Amino acid sequence: MNLKNAMLTAALLSCAVWGADAQQKLNSPNGNLEMVFDMNEAGTPVYTLNFKQKPVIKPSKLGLTVKPGENPVSTSLNSGFELTSTETGSFDEMWQPVWGEEKEIRNHYNEMAVVLTQPETERQMLVRFRLFNDGLGFRYEFPQQPNLNYFVIEEENTQFAMAGDHKAFWIPGDFDTQEYDYTTSKLSEIPGLMETAITFNTSQTPIRPVSVQTALMMKSDDGLYINLHEAALVDYSCMHLILNPENLVFESCLTPDAQGNKGHMQTDCTSPWRTVIVSDDARDILASRITLNLNEPCAYEDVSWITPVKYVGVWWDMITGKGSWAYTNDLNSVKLGVTDYTKTKPNGTHSANTANVKRYIDFAADHGFDAVLVEGWNEGWEDWFAMSKDYVFDFVTPYPDFNVAEVRDYAASKGIKMMMHHETSASVRNYERHMDKAYQFMKDNGYNSVKSGYVGNIIPRGEHHYGQFMNNHYLYAVKKAAEYGVMVNAHEAVRPTGLCRTYPNLIGNESARGTEYESFGGNNTDHTTILPFTRLIGGPMDYTPGIFETRCNQMNPENNSQVRSTLARQLALYVTMYSPLQMAADIPENYERFMDAFQFIKDVALDWDETHYLEAEPGDYLTIARREKGTNNWFVGCTADENGHQSVVAFDFLEPGKSYVATIYKDAPDANWETNPQAYQIEKGVLTNKSKLNLKAASGGGYAISIKEAPDKLALNGLKKL
Amino acid sequence: MNLKNAMLTAALLSCAVWGADAQQKLNSPNGNLEMVFDMNEAGTPVYTLNFKQKPVIKPSKLGLTVKPGENPVSTSLNSGFELTSTETGSFDEMWQPVWGEEKEIRNHYNEMAVVLTQPETERQMLVRFRLFNDGLGFRYEFPQQPNLNYFVIEEENTQFAMAGDHKAFWIPGDFDTQEYDYTTSKLSEIPGLMETAITFNTSQTPIRPVSVQTALMMKSDDGLYINLHEAALVDYSCMHLILNPENLVFESCLTPDAQGNKGHMQTDCTSPWRTVIVSDDARDILASRITLNLNEPCAYEDVSWITPVKYVGVWWDMITGKGSWAYTNDLNSVKLGVTDYTKTKPNGTHSANTANVKRYIDFAADHGFDAVLVEGWNEGWEDWFAMSKDYVFDFVTPYPDFNVAEVRDYAASKGIKMMMHHETSASVRNYERHMDKAYQFMKDNGYNSVKSGYVGNIIPRGEHHYGQFMNNHYLYAVKKAAEYGVMVNAHEAVRPTGLCRTYPNLIGNESARGTEYESFGGNNTDHTTILPFTRLIGGPMDYTPGIFETRCNQMNPENNSQVRSTLARQLALYVTMYSPLQMAADIPENYERFMDAFQFIKDVALDWDETHYLEAEPGDYLTIARREKGTNNWFVGCTADENGHQSVVAFDFLEPGKSYVATIYKDAPDANWETNPQAYQIEKGVLTNKSKLNLKAASGGGYAISIKEAPDKLALNGLKKL
Repeated sequence: MNLKNAMLTAALLSCAVWGADAQQKLNSPNGNLEMVFDMNEAGTPVYTLNFKQKPVIKPSKLGLTVKPGENPVSTSLNSGFELTSTETGSFDEMWQPVWGEEKEIRNHYNEMAVVLTQPETERQMLVRFRLFNDGLGFRYEFPQQPNLNYFVIEEENTQFAMAGDHKAFWIPGDFDTQEYDYTTSKLSEIPGLMETAITFNTSQTPIRPVSVQTALMMKSDDGLYINLHEAALVDYSCMHLILNPENLVFESCLTPDAQGNKGHMQTDCTSPWRTVIVSDDARDILASRITLNLNEPCAYEDVSWITPVKYVGVWWDMITGKGSWAYTNDLNSVKLGVTDYTKTKPNGTHSANTANVKRYIDFAADHGFDAVLVEGWNEGWEDWFAMSKDYVFDFVTPYPDFNVAEVRDYAASKGIKMMMHHETSASVRNYERHMDKAYQFMKDNGYNSVKSGYVGNIIPRGEHHYGQFMNNHYLYAVKKAAEYGVMVNAHEAVRPTGLCRTYPNLIGNESARGTEYESFGGNNTDHTTILPFTRLIGGPMDYTPGIFETRCNQMNPENNSQVRSTLARQLALYVTMYSPLQMAADIPENYERFMDAFQFIKDVALDWDETHYLEAEPGDYLTIARREKGTNNWFVGCTADENGHQSVVAFDFLEPGKSYVATIYKDAPDANWETNPQAYQIEKGVLTNKSKLNLKAASGGGYAISIKEAPDKLALNGLKKL
Repeated sequence: MNLKNAMLTAALLSCAVWGADAQQKLNSPNGNLEMVFDMNEAGTPVYTLNFKQKPVIKPSKLGLTVKPGENPVSTSLNSGFELTSTETGSFDEMWQPVWGEEKEIRNHYNEMAVVLTQPETERQMLVRFRLFNDGLGFRYEFPQQPNLNYFVIEEENTQFAMAGDHKAFWIPGDFDTQEYDYTTSKLSEIPGLMETAITFNTSQTPIRPVSVQTALMMKSDDGLYINLHEAALVDYSCMHLILNPENLVFESCLTPDAQGNKGHMQTDCTSPWRTVIVSDDARDILASRITLNLNEPCAYEDVSWITPVKYVGVWWDMITGKGSWAYTNDLNSVKLGVTDYTKTKPNGTHSANTANVKRYIDFAADHGFDAVLVEGWNEGWEDWFAMSKDYVFDFVTPYPDFNVAEVRDYAASKGIKMMMHHETSASVRNYERHMDKAYQFMKDNGYNSVKSGYVGNIIPRGEHHYGQFMNNHYLYAVKKAAEYGVMVNAHEAVRPTGLCRTYPNLIGNESARGTEYESFGGNNTDHTTILPFTRLIGGPMDYTPGIFETRCNQMNPENNSQVRSTLARQLALYVTMYSPLQMAADIPENYERFMDAFQFIKDVALDWDETHYLEAEPGDYLTIARREKGTNNWFVGCTADENGHQSVVAFDFLEPGKSYVATIYKDAPDANWETNPQAYQIEKGVLTNKSKLNLKAASGGGYAISIKEAPDKLALNGLKKL
């Protein structure tokens, strides 16, 4: 591929087509995918998608229901249309992400925009389809026009009609949380499993009876892998999917605002892109860059301040219940600016104290980390939770035992950056009121990234985590952070939709069940074999892997939860869970017990020139190899479900004729996530591009390999050929 | 009265009282008022109020309904109480307002706090009563306690049981607007008149079927004047009153949030004060300072930057439809930062252009005004209205024809301050996001006061203008303005409750039907005889009087509305409608036609050492005399309803032995608001404290008098004795 620069080969055609002649076809560049557009008798637009002649999306309706409001007529934007004209074109370019899974990304598609007119209302709406080799993206476009200026969305009515009773990897649809374990079932089984799947969360609004979230991963009986999601969710409400179990048709359900409306639009405007990624090889789903390609190019001129971050932090300590965010147990009610903490008795378990943080800074500096996160450093944690408290944090006032200046100077002396923590308790007006001062405080004190959190019900009350109002907020926070040179890692925010292409200081999100749940009862053993097919389709996750002491009662005797993973698999996640932001989440004491294994975390790269998806089956296993940015070093990771996995890895991705020194971190033969999680073996040897290795992942296990190009023959002395 | 300094003579008594012995009595300092507290059989607190042995409030229940929520038990705070103890005391002090109707205000009351305990829930609640000579204030207090930490108010259940079918001056209860004309009727007639009283407003949520707003003014058949309102509305929802027409009991109805809840409380905390002002002389209602006295003292150390403001402005021009806020008629959709106004065609009616504003600055400087308001100076007015538009204004970007720097420099050269206009279109998140930059922009460009506006439905959607969330915002805006040395005049905000004592940079509010409605069909002729008994009880109103050309079709041929006032009465309003902020609202051209009458507006003071309420009957007339701060100059104003009014004014408030030069601006004998509004007479003569004058206000008329101490006998030369 020689497409180093953008190549636009658009050929726009326009033709007026009416009534029965409305059918239009669009093919992917390689011809594997065919999208057919048509109008039904009611004047409703309909689309169909086939992959290698197999149906992926059966005829599915498009459109939106809008509220009468200020509009002269009440007819919705889902029927009564005529096809006015069609524009087609194609596009092919290479672009370079600021950070990512590869150095360059190809954006290659054929495009068709159908211009639809409602004769009755004289309104116009476009549906723009982009067909890539790996799937379809389409969106609604609303030009500025006399009869469509401001409008309120009652619901979006986009359908995705499934062609069979696929196996699905799903979590319940919810307007406030994605922190559910995945259920694997047939589509037809979803209704019966729904109530079990809806587990408790601090803030949750499940969409009953039958809905699921995107990215939704499915596999058909005849071996098609199908993924439904959205891209470029800007100034719009997040989409969920309502399943009709009778005919297996999904229909969109947008997140409502406090009044039940689904969106406030001003033309000209567009919906986000709705995406269907499809292949007969599961690896292609992981390799798809549709979500990024459907986002706008980088919005920033200078991106030199945006860098990948490997960090440790004062966190797992409190998550397991060993330490506390709160400074004192004296208070069950705090009024910021009134409560005098110096008059309270410290509880002795407050982890974010200067001495402890300095210990983390030392550890970070000793082992080559970039940053240290400190949670619980600021006043307010005694009553922050589930109180619907408006003025809950001010983001600038430390507890008495956390010396901001001392930490700042100490970190600076060790070359370590501090990572700020802004838990908002979902009190969003309060956060926006303090945001400028909070970011300035960060800048003044050596913090160049922030982990923000939105735990609990949103204030303004009645708004949901995934509604247009909050989506607007998350992006506001990211853009304002950029003004201060701050990178953002937002937890409990809306799941990502590739916006990191446009705003690459959005270096991470949680937006799924992360490692913290391993301390709250555990994640399913297959969780990390599913996330790359679902949550990660939209962008990187701050999954916070690297828990070496998987038995939580070793941290806190009262916590009997266990991380459902072997130690070796914890290493693999740094490769399989792509993110430019990676935490070594365990406490230093636990790493010090396993320094040989910890070496992998120290070595593993955060940014990549090249990625190969070696093996993948959602829910079972996946194996990924990545080449470190600007080097010839490779890292391989494999994660497996409770059945383990036997890999045969061919290293043909290595450069021919070269020798590499590989260090393999793998489960011992008797390893098992539950009974023997810390049984691992480290093997060192020589690899070439001809090498093939049999590698076994234990139940809930995996392996990690670091591969470094041998500088000379001397480096291979005494090493066996693997 | 020698009480120059605060004198606290509190004598706190505490005693445990149970069951039938709960009755407690409290008398006003002068003994005229008696408040009786008791507990009924259900353990509900009950109070009664008598004035000179006449019942004012018959036995009325107290308490709140709270939501179960996080609380251990669901019993509400309106029954099941026992009286645990009672504290009594008295208080007497003089305090000096930063600006006001007099130099010093006496705060003199007897106090009783009843401590109530719910044995079932172990919760405690206090009701604190303060009985002044002019009325009662009481509030709920919730100490911090194990079983009452955070709680959600479902409703406040405060009753005001009326002792008779009083005449009431009322507007419909509404969560979003107070811009209604007053209806005068018996209480029992309110239900039948309600639907007529609910006239259209851009944002309105009437509380059906039968509710009214405070301050509610009433008159009993036996001549008692009773006023119900609230004081110190902070972090709480505004109270309305639901009338039970069967028994004439009012019960509180708080403004709900987007989820229907009425308040989110964190102990310790209090409700606002509920006030009952009562007298057998209507003038005492006007003279009552209960509302201010129940607010906290001034929160600012330095108040030197807070000054009364007399201003003109680019406003009536647009209100009448002569000019426009919008710059162009090309756009029905604006996207700030995207829309390029320089590419649009100016509409030629945009009033806020540099040349016109400079003309206003000239006029202000020529006639001794402090400031010039300019509305419509900033981008966004083409589609600001009723669109629920989030990013509607940025508060810093002028239209192409408004040169901020040129206006700034020109105003400065003339010694004129500029008054900023921040219309928010009720998009409050957007306003808060821009607030710091907007205030800084003001500071940089010579604006030391802001008229803010909240027209339309609130964003965050579902919140109401008068809910806790918005009340929090209005105060946030005032406090933040103080950081920038900015005075605030908020329109469409919650009606004031005396907060200007604590935050004296809140120099005005609209919060009622102002002069603008004279251009939208007209205000009732008696409107300005009622407002001082209702809206002004809470604080000053930016009523914007001074319309000399009362026939709007002289401004805009298509506008056939008429100001329901004579020209002379327009002058009187500067005295009768107390405010430290006074606008001469008409356009310069109209003033230039009546420069002799305009002299009164030039002369009239804004701040006062002394005020005498000479005559008053709500709905009919009122006459007020005030002495200018720091001088011996007096100003008198009288406003009358459609029946006119015959006054006999005794000038015994003037200093004995001194001669004063008075200029009387009065209706001509044939004047009439409707048919002959501009017929006025100006008379000059000499007054002493022995003088008595018969003065007649025409139908919808009034008179204004400026009285200046004669510097010497020479000044009296040629003047007749009046």
